[in-house]
Amino acid sequence: MRSPGAALDTPACITEHGSRNLPAAIGDALDAVDTPALILDLDVFERNLATMSAAVRGTPVRLRPHAKSHKCPEIARRQIALGAVGICCQKVAEAEVFVAAGVRDVLITNEIVGAGKLDRLARMARLARIGVLVDDGGNVRDIAAAAARAGAEVEVLVELDVGAHRCGVDPDAAGAPALQLARAIAAQPALRFGGLHAYHGGAQHLRTPDERVHAIACAARWAAQTKRSIEAIGIPCPTVTGAGTGSFMLERDSGVYTELQPGSYIFMDADYRRNEPAEGAPVFAQSLFVWTSVMSRPTHDRAIVDAGLKASSVDSGLPMVAEWPGVRFVKASDEHGVLEIDAGAKSPALGTKLKLVPGHCDPTVNLYDWIVAVRKERVEALWPVSARGALL
Amino acid sequence: MRSPGAALDTPACITEHGSRNLPAAIGDALDAVDTPALILDLDVFERNLATMSAAVRGTPVRLRPHAKSHKCPEIARRQIALGAVGICCQKVAEAEVFVAAGVRDVLITNEIVGAGKLDRLARMARLARIGVLVDDGGNVRDIAAAAARAGAEVEVLVELDVGAHRCGVDPDAAGAPALQLARAIAAQPALRFGGLHAYHGGAQHLRTPDERVHAIACAARWAAQTKRSIEAIGIPCPTVTGAGTGSFMLERDSGVYTELQPGSYIFMDADYRRNEPAEGAPVFAQSLFVWTSVMSRPTHDRAIVDAGLKASSVDSGLPMVAEWPGVRFVKASDEHGVLEIDAGAKSPALGTKLKLVPGHCDPTVNLYDWIVAVRKERVEALWPVSARGALL
Repeated sequence: MRSPGAALDTPACITEHGSRNLPAAIGDALDAVDTPALILDLDVFERNLATMSAAVRGTPVRLRPHAKSHKCPEIARRQIALGAVGICCQKVAEAEVFVAAGVRDVLITNEIVGAGKLDRLARMARLARIGVLVDDGGNVRDIAAAAARAGAEVEVLVELDVGAHRCGVDPDAAGAPALQLARAIAAQPALRFGGLHAYHGGAQHLRTPDERVHAIACAARWAAQTKRSIEAIGIPCPTVTGAGTGSFMLERDSGVYTELQPGSYIFMDADYRRNEPAEGAPVFAQSLFVWTSVMSRPTHDRAIVDAGLKASSVDSGLPMVAEWPGVRFVKASDEHGVLEIDAGAKSPALGTKLKLVPGHCDPTVNLYDWIVAVRKERVEALWPVSARGALL
Repeated sequence: MRSPGAALDTPACITEHGSRNLPAAIGDALDAVDTPALILDLDVFERNLATMSAAVRGTPVRLRPHAKSHKCPEIARRQIALGAVGICCQKVAEAEVFVAAGVRDVLITNEIVGAGKLDRLARMARLARIGVLVDDGGNVRDIAAAAARAGAEVEVLVELDVGAHRCGVDPDAAGAPALQLARAIAAQPALRFGGLHAYHGGAQHLRTPDERVHAIACAARWAAQTKRSIEAIGIPCPTVTGAGTGSFMLERDSGVYTELQPGSYIFMDADYRRNEPAEGAPVFAQSLFVWTSVMSRPTHDRAIVDAGLKASSVDSGLPMVAEWPGVRFVKASDEHGVLEIDAGAKSPALGTKLKLVPGHCDPTVNLYDWIVAVRKERVEALWPVSARGALL
């Protein structure tokens, strides 16, 4: 583990092959952090970690948080230290960064296609427990061949389409494709059948608790029925995994799911904050912000900040201005954000720094090389977003 | 300049501090390029460069292409070799990468606020001609102080709001703020008044030629009038700069603008392709694509590709599937794209690789470490996107 200070032993390095300007130095006051930067309120972040840990402790489910949200080994280590069994990733290149950082149990919650990627995946399985999803029989054979070439065992789960209508086999399809895939996996000596992936992505963003209850109840029924049919032919189905920040209490209490894979709970974002909370559900607070400066004050009711599309992803809506009532982020271009200032609101002067709540945390984190970890308005660490851009 | 092959002398390097997997090796067939990757059709790209060069040659305007689109020194060098006087950047950190790469004339088409950034900007002005925009008198004094500290001269242009309603002073405001700023700049020994920045961003994306003609005519009138008022008090106003890919012929022929700053023409994207072309205007073709693989074929009418929000920015609309009639990109999540396949269309099999036209080229390029330069379906070079993530 790189100590937080070590990043700063190297001075900012700019060559024609890239820039390593650092947004802050350890010990800086928050106000001295350069902009735009990704800042993490450590007190809130640590409460979010503890809240999730408490929500899972003493229940029959394991926590395997999704690392696609943070792409940061330091955060994975903290999640595991608080009881997570490992992490989820979406890409082989992401998993490689975490395995290189010492994580020894990674589930790639995605189909991986192509001999080059499968060879890399199988080589990782020499070092760590590596799982992957399938929804195609030819892909099962390709993974088995890669595992055999690497002399490693790979765990394979069947992905069910339980409502997301993305990847996965239809649990209700004629010919019982999930059962056929489980049989094909179990028949491969280099593979281990892990169970079922039953993630309903869309359910995370249904706004009312009732809609989410209904969606996850359906998903759990499909998963339970498929699991029974696989076990009925003598193939054990140890894991049923799914769930995200918007619904994990439902999967936890379903009696069907055995692993949960929420990611965003550590940070939160404007989109998740639009969900109406379920009664009694654990509450996660906003810990992640885009730190931005007012770079132009062209009119009394307009301020321009230095964070646009390349500093805060707008796929799920614009960022929100935090802790500054009466000022709204109304438009983003590549490198600019336009703020509207209500009559009577406190008006941010040129150079004022303020916090934005990103619209969607995962793709926003992917825009940054560093997370600036701040406690009580002072920089405690810079954590590299090591799997940033790990697409392959 | 790094030779294209040099990047590959180093094997792919994965540590807990990051991944440097390369998407291709020089000489690979296109079909062997890993996905998702950013691919550039060199023949089309070079035609786009030549088309812009020809459109400006023999006219009174200079070409200063915007490097925020490509963030790639190799592309800047090619633009300059074909007659560009220098480049534009949006961020100090971007400019640093290009100056480190040998570019000696950079206009930062943005307001830069804060002593730290201004000191970096001024230090660059020891090596290169560096320009920057202002719309605030206090900012003029701060730039002058930084230039004095660095012992360098910085060129400063006044930004006019000619319709974008972002940064810039109102050319029609009481008290003639542009004139006051020009006077303040001219009075500072460490600064050189460069002229006016009159960029109308919104005009690039007006869909009909008539709308664009009207918008740029207004912008040009404001710029001309402001220039006259500044020259009337004895301050020369050598440069009027603006224009983008969607409108540059209008600025070129305005009799007012002296520099053009288009960026996207080298690549093009789905958003620019929605513009109705003006009669007789130069045509730029799509050279930039997101190369993606079909990773799941759950139903006969749905294919899932491995390029989602983290591989193609959706701020200006979804990517379009290229060269594959009857297949449409209909939804993006973080790491997945959903394709709908029309009845009767050729159906892409699992593992098929296809090209996407990104919705918006600039923020898409910013997601990648490499541009894979391809000619006649063979990889000719890998160019580092050196200023990727250069936010500060």
